Amino acid sequence: MRPPLRAATPPEWVDEAIRRWPELLADHANCEKKAASTALALMFAYPEDRALATRLSKLAREELRHFEQVDKLMQAHAVPYLRRKPGRYASALREAMTTHEPYRKLDLLLCGALIEARSCERFSLLSSRTEGESLPTDVAALYQGLQASEARHFELYLRLAEAHVKAHPECERQKPWSARLEELATLEAELATSPDAEFRFHSGLPQIGSAQS
Amino acid sequence: MRPPLRAATPPEWVDEAIRRWPELLADHANCEKKAASTALALMFAYPEDRALATRLSKLAREELRHFEQVDKLMQAHAVPYLRRKPGRYASALREAMTTHEPYRKLDLLLCGALIEARSCERFSLLSSRTEGESLPTDVAALYQGLQASEARHFELYLRLAEAHVKAHPECERQKPWSARLEELATLEAELATSPDAEFRFHSGLPQIGSAQS
Repeated sequence: MRPPLRAATPPEWVDEAIRRWPELLADHANCEKKAASTALALMFAYPEDRALATRLSKLAREELRHFEQVDKLMQAHAVPYLRRKPGRYASALREAMTTHEPYRKLDLLLCGALIEARSCERFSLLSSRTEGESLPTDVAALYQGLQASEARHFELYLRLAEAHVKAHPECERQKPWSARLEELATLEAELATSPDAEFRFHSGLPQIGSAQS
Repeated sequence: MRPPLRAATPPEWVDEAIRRWPELLADHANCEKKAASTALALMFAYPEDRALATRLSKLAREELRHFEQVDKLMQAHAVPYLRRKPGRYASALREAMTTHEPYRKLDLLLCGALIEARSCERFSLLSSRTEGESLPTDVAALYQGLQASEARHFELYLRLAEAHVKAHPECERQKPWSARLEELATLEAELATSPDAEFRFHSGLPQIGSAQS
């Protein structure tokens, strides 16, 4: 399955992330925890969708295992924990979502797919950087390992979206679901590439002297 | 470690649970999902407590795996899914919790321990019943297997509570934490044994003709 991303991460983000890898790691730990809780929230919101429940339960378990792996690396490198508010990326995607069903569920699944696809792309960029500065070996090794999981996860979210549309054909009354994916992917690409005051795992183009939240 | 329960489940609850095992299974699936989300909520509420985070992350993964096992049994027995509001047990325990720190965290951990201990006791009662009616073999086998996990879980919650009190000795300014456990355990025992209009995994003494919510 082709990743649904509409723009590549700017190389400047990769430079910044490698320079600020301890912060990246701390933010990434939060992302894994958030990914698990998003999956659980979907299981609670749509309990009658049992295929979704069992698949997202497995996905949440995987995200939690990743959280534990990242936390272990943080401890090995004495990286302190960072308490942070949701960043621009997650907040803007959430705001763009339709509030009524059956469109909301479609949006939640499509955004899930986009977030996982972006994570997958960034893990790949971070772990394959060979010129100039690079990540500590153990961090690069973890990120390389996580790529495959994140690729499976975006595919799963897309398959769940497809199944939802099949069960609720009214989702396509105004436009095909691929057009809705395109809209959300365009917003996601803008968030991942436009100038961003903060540096995060899912932030945009870093600004000189970009601040911590 | 001795289970902190202050009263045994009435035999009438076990009879009712065996008679209504498909509902028990459906309610149990929700309990496993809720147990995972409670653990995640604690990870989000206290991110600076990294020992708590890694231990509860593992616990949440285990609860999700149990959810998947219960869901599989439900599918095998064609048990329909039940959407239900929180029951009397969880609601009353939540209401009894202190709202300010550091007491709130202590209460959350102690209630976590009590709920896991009650689950452990009921799994044991349900799977060991040999006289009269009993559960389908595969359901009884799962419940027998889950006892050991739930016993580990209540011990973990108690150890986390102990560690919290050690880090925040002010928790014991008014009374030792064992006295707070006693108070909550007394309420929990009352909820698990007093007449209850509803039948649930954590309900009290069943009433004749008790209703579904």
